[in-house]
Amino acid sequence: MIKIHTVSGYEEVGKNMTAVEYNGEVVIIDMGIRLDRVLIHEDVNIQQFPTKELQRLGAIPDDSSIRNKKVVAITFTHGHLDHIGAVAKLAPHYPDVPIYGTPYTIKLAKGEVKSEQYFEVKNPMYETDYGEIVQVSENLAIEFVRSTHSIPQAAMVVVHTPEGAVVHTGDFKFDNNNPLGERPDYKRLKELGQEGVKVLIPESTRVAEPTKTPSEAVAQMLLEDFFLYEGMDEDGLIATTFASHIARLQELIRIANKMGRQAVLVGRSLAKYTGIAKQLGLIKMKGARAVRSPNAVRKVLKEVSGARENYLLIVTGHQGEPGAVLTRMANGELYDIGKRDTVVFSAGTIPNPLNRAQRYVLETKLRMKGVRMIKDLHVSGHASREDHRYLVRMLNPENIVPAHGEFRMLTHYAELAEEEGYLIGRDVFVSRNGYTVEIG
Amino acid sequence: MIKIHTVSGYEEVGKNMTAVEYNGEVVIIDMGIRLDRVLIHEDVNIQQFPTKELQRLGAIPDDSSIRNKKVVAITFTHGHLDHIGAVAKLAPHYPDVPIYGTPYTIKLAKGEVKSEQYFEVKNPMYETDYGEIVQVSENLAIEFVRSTHSIPQAAMVVVHTPEGAVVHTGDFKFDNNNPLGERPDYKRLKELGQEGVKVLIPESTRVAEPTKTPSEAVAQMLLEDFFLYEGMDEDGLIATTFASHIARLQELIRIANKMGRQAVLVGRSLAKYTGIAKQLGLIKMKGARAVRSPNAVRKVLKEVSGARENYLLIVTGHQGEPGAVLTRMANGELYDIGKRDTVVFSAGTIPNPLNRAQRYVLETKLRMKGVRMIKDLHVSGHASREDHRYLVRMLNPENIVPAHGEFRMLTHYAELAEEEGYLIGRDVFVSRNGYTVEIG
Amino acid sequence: MIKIHTVSGYEEVGKNMTAVEYNGEVVIIDMGIRLDRVLIHEDVNIQQFPTKELQRLGAIPDDSSIRNKKVVAITFTHGHLDHIGAVAKLAPHYPDVPIYGTPYTIKLAKGEVKSEQYFEVKNPMYETDYGEIVQVSENLAIEFVRSTHSIPQAAMVVVHTPEGAVVHTGDFKFDNNNPLGERPDYKRLKELGQEGVKVLIPESTRVAEPTKTPSEAVAQMLLEDFFLYEGMDEDGLIATTFASHIARLQELIRIANKMGRQAVLVGRSLAKYTGIAKQLGLIKMKGARAVRSPNAVRKVLKEVSGARENYLLIVTGHQGEPGAVLTRMANGELYDIGKRDTVVFSAGTIPNPLNRAQRYVLETKLRMKGVRMIKDLHVSGHASREDHRYLVRMLNPENIVPAHGEFRMLTHYAELAEEEGYLIGRDVFVSRNGYTVEIG
Amino acid sequence: MIKIHTVSGYEEVGKNMTAVEYNGEVVIIDMGIRLDRVLIHEDVNIQQFPTKELQRLGAIPDDSSIRNKKVVAITFTHGHLDHIGAVAKLAPHYPDVPIYGTPYTIKLAKGEVKSEQYFEVKNPMYETDYGEIVQVSENLAIEFVRSTHSIPQAAMVVVHTPEGAVVHTGDFKFDNNNPLGERPDYKRLKELGQEGVKVLIPESTRVAEPTKTPSEAVAQMLLEDFFLYEGMDEDGLIATTFASHIARLQELIRIANKMGRQAVLVGRSLAKYTGIAKQLGLIKMKGARAVRSPNAVRKVLKEVSGARENYLLIVTGHQGEPGAVLTRMANGELYDIGKRDTVVFSAGTIPNPLNRAQRYVLETKLRMKGVRMIKDLHVSGHASREDHRYLVRMLNPENIVPAHGEFRMLTHYAELAEEEGYLIGRDVFVSRNGYTVEIG
Repeated sequence: MIKIHTVSGYEEVGKNMTAVEYNGEVVIIDMGIRLDRVLIHEDVNIQQFPTKELQRLGAIPDDSSIRNKKVVAITFTHGHLDHIGAVAKLAPHYPDVPIYGTPYTIKLAKGEVKSEQYFEVKNPMYETDYGEIVQVSENLAIEFVRSTHSIPQAAMVVVHTPEGAVVHTGDFKFDNNNPLGERPDYKRLKELGQEGVKVLIPESTRVAEPTKTPSEAVAQMLLEDFFLYEGMDEDGLIATTFASHIARLQELIRIANKMGRQAVLVGRSLAKYTGIAKQLGLIKMKGARAVRSPNAVRKVLKEVSGARENYLLIVTGHQGEPGAVLTRMANGELYDIGKRDTVVFSAGTIPNPLNRAQRYVLETKLRMKGVRMIKDLHVSGHASREDHRYLVRMLNPENIVPAHGEFRMLTHYAELAEEEGYLIGRDVFVSRNGYTVEIG
Repeated sequence: MIKIHTVSGYEEVGKNMTAVEYNGEVVIIDMGIRLDRVLIHEDVNIQQFPTKELQRLGAIPDDSSIRNKKVVAITFTHGHLDHIGAVAKLAPHYPDVPIYGTPYTIKLAKGEVKSEQYFEVKNPMYETDYGEIVQVSENLAIEFVRSTHSIPQAAMVVVHTPEGAVVHTGDFKFDNNNPLGERPDYKRLKELGQEGVKVLIPESTRVAEPTKTPSEAVAQMLLEDFFLYEGMDEDGLIATTFASHIARLQELIRIANKMGRQAVLVGRSLAKYTGIAKQLGLIKMKGARAVRSPNAVRKVLKEVSGARENYLLIVTGHQGEPGAVLTRMANGELYDIGKRDTVVFSAGTIPNPLNRAQRYVLETKLRMKGVRMIKDLHVSGHASREDHRYLVRMLNPENIVPAHGEFRMLTHYAELAEEEGYLIGRDVFVSRNGYTVEIG
Repeated sequence: MIKIHTVSGYEEVGKNMTAVEYNGEVVIIDMGIRLDRVLIHEDVNIQQFPTKELQRLGAIPDDSSIRNKKVVAITFTHGHLDHIGAVAKLAPHYPDVPIYGTPYTIKLAKGEVKSEQYFEVKNPMYETDYGEIVQVSENLAIEFVRSTHSIPQAAMVVVHTPEGAVVHTGDFKFDNNNPLGERPDYKRLKELGQEGVKVLIPESTRVAEPTKTPSEAVAQMLLEDFFLYEGMDEDGLIATTFASHIARLQELIRIANKMGRQAVLVGRSLAKYTGIAKQLGLIKMKGARAVRSPNAVRKVLKEVSGARENYLLIVTGHQGEPGAVLTRMANGELYDIGKRDTVVFSAGTIPNPLNRAQRYVLETKLRMKGVRMIKDLHVSGHASREDHRYLVRMLNPENIVPAHGEFRMLTHYAELAEEEGYLIGRDVFVSRNGYTVEIG
Repeated sequence: MIKIHTVSGYEEVGKNMTAVEYNGEVVIIDMGIRLDRVLIHEDVNIQQFPTKELQRLGAIPDDSSIRNKKVVAITFTHGHLDHIGAVAKLAPHYPDVPIYGTPYTIKLAKGEVKSEQYFEVKNPMYETDYGEIVQVSENLAIEFVRSTHSIPQAAMVVVHTPEGAVVHTGDFKFDNNNPLGERPDYKRLKELGQEGVKVLIPESTRVAEPTKTPSEAVAQMLLEDFFLYEGMDEDGLIATTFASHIARLQELIRIANKMGRQAVLVGRSLAKYTGIAKQLGLIKMKGARAVRSPNAVRKVLKEVSGARENYLLIVTGHQGEPGAVLTRMANGELYDIGKRDTVVFSAGTIPNPLNRAQRYVLETKLRMKGVRMIKDLHVSGHASREDHRYLVRMLNPENIVPAHGEFRMLTHYAELAEEEGYLIGRDVFVSRNGYTVEIG
């Protein structure tokens, strides 16, 4: 019998953790943090808190339901913090268990481990290629299938068991025109469907959208269409997007080159993600530079503010995060932002009241300074309902356990599954954090 | 010619200030602050800031358009901070000019003046009764007409000029069944209509609601209906509402008496507003006590937590304001709030992203502790569209200048006015902060 | 073992039908129609359609899952059409099985049977009092518990089985101040809780509202507050509400009396529901008259339009239903409605796109004629989340099967249940039309 | 002095008509109908109604304010019915006055005239090229500037007067990548800005969207991304979009070609618009055929239903319009639509309650039949706020009179204008149907 331990991320968007058990052996998928819970307890320095306290606050998964199980592998679907951010706190619960992920993901996870101050993580960490099948115990093997998301090298994790495959999608979209060249591996997905999928564990964040999610190529077109045609020769141009969104950053750099401007990426996390991407050949930084240290940031922004027509600034702060570069600009620090500047938000507003408030403060301050703002030059990185339907039709799984979402998102997934012939409680299961679904 | 200087509150909900000019003489109506602007600049201690800086931040009215005029009177419509909160900063711009308001309003304004650390306000302040007509110059007289709002002794301010009356509504509703016994003075309003109203300056906050605003008696019934019938004999009961909302507090005290519980009002602002109300005979505190000092608060909450079935706590913090009593409880301070407690929100959520975020944090924390929450046992204190229509029909004004609202609220008022036969630009004027409407 | 057959109303608001099975014997609860499905197929004359076709269209319950069971009783919770409207089509499937309900409900069901043109319903129909326990087989007894809703004599239906009680709430609210004097029988509910409730089957329509539903007394106050204070001496006054909402109609009649106007109820369904209510002493028609026949309607409206200051018209058509009196007035028929008239909507807009469209057409036409409209002088007849919580705490049921709602409403109920200690799939079950929940 | 007669379309989306007067001479811009008003009075056959009655119903502009003026030209911005649909009813009010438009627009207008049964339109109609300046009186000349919209050959109409140019945008977007190759004539717009624009009359429908409207190329990508990658080899594929949207239809035909399917356009209006487009070389119908007559439609749909894998159906009915092909399919007519079919909505839902209702009925019926639906593979044809800002900056007009929108849209435009330095009532004017703005 296969058991799906729905450890975390089954009541929220954030802090994902799932465990697949077969015959007493367990494969863990993802160990994320929940950033809005960290925001709520804003006085909390997450590094200084004991693991138990962070679990009590709801900031990281409570793994007590699987802690004493025989774990044979830890896997990461992709490198976003809601999937890898708790590695330094939770991996020590499973000493010596090897950790697997695609190269970009593992490099980011190593960064998390390195910046941890209180725990030492000794688990071996392996960069694993798409398609490679890794035997992790006599009965179990794992495999990473190429998918697409708003970060490079996202994967669906397959746990091969004697009863059939368990497929965990991680976060994904089906992007057929990604400018970075990444494409979902439909061929392998269809093969898996034919070999027999016992359980599908799909993300649920946008399953209520009755459409297909647009390709990243659409975001590229939205950005080009704005930047290249209005001829804002003398304006200061400032774009802000997700620091881990390498495809988007690449587009902005390409646009800067076309405009004859230098792209300047300002902020620590931009430097971190692009740095690793460059090592792996995932981004070309020609015509761009990234500045990281506080001194360098101050210096470069002073330089830009004196000749803003020569630069395209790419900064952190699209959600108005405290301490981010754009937030500080709006506060009148670092750069005299004002009427001569245009800010392009190449990111949506994360639909959480705390984010909304921070973003509102940011926009209000920018508006008070007369800054022009262009919003929503962005597409989502998550599959919509019709992408999910396509996946279900390719994999034809025997059972479905929707993951990564609030209760209503999981139930929306169940509705979709029922349209495809499943029945809630029989072969599609809405579960909760800390519970286990037993697949008969 | 009459000029209406729409100084402030014509682009927002907050920091109201209007000035009526006739023949070079000016009557000022209200001097408020804008609390959300203070929230945005959260690092700001408003007391320590120079007036100019507060104006630049958008926290108090920029009165430069009228500062050098001959001001003959300052009037307050009612005692909420968005109407009187800037008195200590702005009254010094008009030295010796007398300030008028109803007794409760003036007492609150004096409190503001007293707690000011940087300015000394020397203007004489007069408690004025409804109906009294005060001659403030050879040409101008002022009058306070009884209305109803979510604070005692709200008034419409009438400026009598040789060309007819200018009526500023302040914030109001038409409440025909207010449990405190206050009723709008329809008789006087109809008289004014017959005498001739040159200009009506109405608040606009809820003019888009296509109904009549319910009476405060409805809130009373909602509260009684919940508290008196469920028989929560052993639960801790905690209600939270606006500290200045004396009618609501009186109902909660009456309910506590009926339940055989003691009402305990906890928090500085609750003590402040009820204290003044008690002096004026506006509230009966029998069966209730208010605690104010930090030590007393700690002590009383310890006492209550040991015998919660004996008390009805009434606390500050319905919007999740930092430092308020309920907010601190949710943080685990002062009182071990949890599964045995029910929190009744006798207040809506103020529709501003910052408030929404604070309230969300509050509710999330309470939910994580297992607290039962009952929301929306509340009615608004502001007139809806059909109340406004009734006012327009009673006063039959020659001109209308909608006040107190965002641009879209002012234009909604204009739409209503057009339904009643006015025409935008001809006799109903949508203005902006700092501009002047000249009434031909 | 108890089986709950969730026949219909588990994917929608409308066409309710549930069956409780114990040891092979079945009690049916409700047989409703779904009016929006009838609207969709607007060309359909529901009377002329065969039962199978109506089931295929989704207009009445598909009872095939229970049709061959041994049914021992049919019960109705209350007299709304989404609970009794399919009686004439479906009761013939269960010949000779007796039908039970409170007197008002049974009289309305008889009316449905009588107007049926194609089927003859021979089932015996019994008016049953609250509290009476009717043995319907050796093992099973039924009981009607007094509750409150927007129609007189609503009941919760209890099926007493050897394994404990099954409680079906029907539609209800907890109204402690209903002007008609009806009160929920909390005492009996608490007794049932102590005796042991095996299954609770609650309606779910408004469980997402985080409050307690206001009493009908609030609607009364809203209406009085408007009608009695504005002194619209010369206006034509037209109120519209649900024809079956006897409490609301009684209030309007009382108001008309206070205003010195005659209440005139115009429209066939108003005459029907008030006629039966009058027989049962549920309404006092003093100072009122109801007109029904097309000729009488034409005549009375002509009379009223010539002296509108003497009347308060109460008409059908609050949702803009085609053929209703208000709808025809808006079309320029029957009565020259215009600037001198005020229409009071004592009803919400039913949140279905078809209703919204009809209501929009109605309001647009009235607005084009210059009619004043007052909306939302109304309260809901359905329990909110905190009423549901109170019920769960009183009954303390072993299992819960949420009924009457779209999928998302049923899952909202499940969320509430989980807050109270239940677990989805273990003791709270989200089911679908045509399925069966087996209670272990 | 220039007068802008805001005849119609200043309180709604629909029935546009504006008149520019200089020195007693008038140029009319657009004569549209308002389709939702026709829908409201569903019993009305618009052809049979006298003009006055249609005006009273709000279905066509009430031109009484300009009817007796000296009209020297009638111009059309583009061929949508809310801009040309009243030509047959209103042009007879201005006998012999010549009518101008781009070729596609004029051909469509001639079609309207031809299908009119009650009036004969004798006005001369001239196909006019972009850039051509037509002297229409001694003082006035007109010019059509190339813009982009969801129909070919949209234009901004310029009225050249001795006091400067008056620019009416018609409906437009700034589409820099339109697959049809049309581009806005930024060069001419900038020239006009330098020559001096006295008045700008912009459409306002989407000015509240804080972004730049995506290019039609985005819609093309959304469609390709769905159709070309899922490999629905055996499904019936049905797309529905606006019949006048030639660019969209061209993309669908191209996609059908790539899939090796034949594109079959079914429905009278599809045949009409593509027929004229083909004459003008605006669409390539290779691999496609359009069927128009009822018999041909029946025949071709029978053929398709027997071999659906060979066709891509393109049909009318995206809003669920009664009588449209998709609507009839959903009713079970013409084609046995069901589980094997996928319907792609390449159109949004028009945000009017009547459309929402029709669309809801359509989707409900399709869902009941098991049809897969993909929504929102679409982009808008209307400029967003930042496009409008760009236009204002290019033209730098002295005055602005926002057009084509509900009151709140016009005021949103005024807000944008104020951000750019204008002031409401001084140089940006919110007007209403039937009024006149005098430009001092």
